[in-house]
Amino acid sequence: MRVGIAGLGLIGGSLALALRGRYDVVGWSPSAATRAAAGAAGVQLVDSLEHLLPADCVIVASPLAQVVPTLEWLAPRAGRAILLDVGSLKVPVAEFAKRTASATRVVGGHPMAGTTESGFAAADETLFRNRPFLVVPTVRSDEDALAVAGDLARSTGAVVTVISAEAHDEVVAALSAVPLAVAAALARTGHDIVGTAITALAGPGFRDTTRLAATPRELAAGILADNAANVALALARFRMHLDMLQAAVATRDPRAVERALEQLGRSTDQPAV
Amino acid sequence: MRVGIAGLGLIGGSLALALRGRYDVVGWSPSAATRAAAGAAGVQLVDSLEHLLPADCVIVASPLAQVVPTLEWLAPRAGRAILLDVGSLKVPVAEFAKRTASATRVVGGHPMAGTTESGFAAADETLFRNRPFLVVPTVRSDEDALAVAGDLARSTGAVVTVISAEAHDEVVAALSAVPLAVAAALARTGHDIVGTAITALAGPGFRDTTRLAATPRELAAGILADNAANVALALARFRMHLDMLQAAVATRDPRAVERALEQLGRSTDQPAV
Repeated sequence: MRVGIAGLGLIGGSLALALRGRYDVVGWSPSAATRAAAGAAGVQLVDSLEHLLPADCVIVASPLAQVVPTLEWLAPRAGRAILLDVGSLKVPVAEFAKRTASATRVVGGHPMAGTTESGFAAADETLFRNRPFLVVPTVRSDEDALAVAGDLARSTGAVVTVISAEAHDEVVAALSAVPLAVAAALARTGHDIVGTAITALAGPGFRDTTRLAATPRELAAGILADNAANVALALARFRMHLDMLQAAVATRDPRAVERALEQLGRSTDQPAV
Repeated sequence: MRVGIAGLGLIGGSLALALRGRYDVVGWSPSAATRAAAGAAGVQLVDSLEHLLPADCVIVASPLAQVVPTLEWLAPRAGRAILLDVGSLKVPVAEFAKRTASATRVVGGHPMAGTTESGFAAADETLFRNRPFLVVPTVRSDEDALAVAGDLARSTGAVVTVISAEAHDEVVAALSAVPLAVAAALARTGHDIVGTAITALAGPGFRDTTRLAATPRELAAGILADNAANVALALARFRMHLDMLQAAVATRDPRAVERALEQLGRSTDQPAV
């Protein structure tokens, strides 16, 4: 099976490294530097997006803002190739699948893995191992296309979960976007109050809680702005919980704060029935 | 030099293990189970708080709510022993030092280390290595007492920084208390939206950002309630930054979000002059 990969950054590059042992993988990047780095690591390359075709599957691993434009460009040319995007939002892909005039098969995918590094230099064939890989059917996904997407995902060592585009984008608002926003605001708060001494004084708790503040800004901005409605809903929930805890802190009564923390923790302690 | 340690939980137990090679260390805990565990690990024990005396230094490693009561009990009996507490708030200790009638020397200390585990079972002689150990002078600290506190701290492998009680409690509001409050609200938000599937879907970003939500509740409640004024100020700053970022997200313009993130990140990218 021939698999083309459009985009060889952290995710596309890691997919190329993870899949090349089992599939006939060819990659392409619009960046000459990225092509050189991937070529040096032994990734088979083509010299244009078009030359990824013909293929059994083309994985679109472009930056988030370029995912739908790349799908739009590929769809009328793809023929029997299944288009599988691996961007971090899925409603825009589902909407593209609804409106495209072409009969091309389109599946959404989202490997829930990453680092705050980016680019092919950070690519790692083990990046997806034991990580969730969400597979999102669209109106242009048939059984065969979903099976291929699942096989590719499992071949990276990931664990496949099928989810709707709408549920996916709600989930990533809560698990990726809001944590990122909160980490950025928290990192700045720490720096405001502690100043440059923060390097000496911050412990592992502060470092872990603010780690996502180092997410590359372009990626972070897309995750937040392109999913704004779900992010607003999740932030409203977060603020409601923080307000409740803050009201307890204002009483200066440790018992009241303990009860507030218990209330916040209850749902994680006791799985919902 | 004889060093008594009152309290053999995570911090007191780790101090006992880290210091016993260099000092004549004796420990005491009000809990028979803790005394048994510490004794089994080779910690020399006494059978009452009083029998930690006479000593050159008594380290008070009680739970936060018991630190000042323990200092109050020890002060009139301590004689030449320096009292060094290692609780996570320092203004209450500074205030105790101001009001005590006794001439006993009192120094505040705060090793910035810990885990979300607690109790002697989690004690680890390497817990403090390369971690900050804040030493906080009180009106009852003389040069000799500060030197002893600094020597003990360095003997654990920690890096000593001297800081005022007021600055200390502001710093821990920003670096410990607010991250903890935010982590608790964020963990609950994720669970609300994702439900029990969160175990399968949460990635390392969400896990790191919410790790502090697992802080033992009694400790967490003290860190928040007993430092309520500083926590309120730090939370107000955090909300101001989050509001700014959220307003940018509401525009749905990735460029606006990128500028907001840049503004939040500027102070950490470029150390203040």
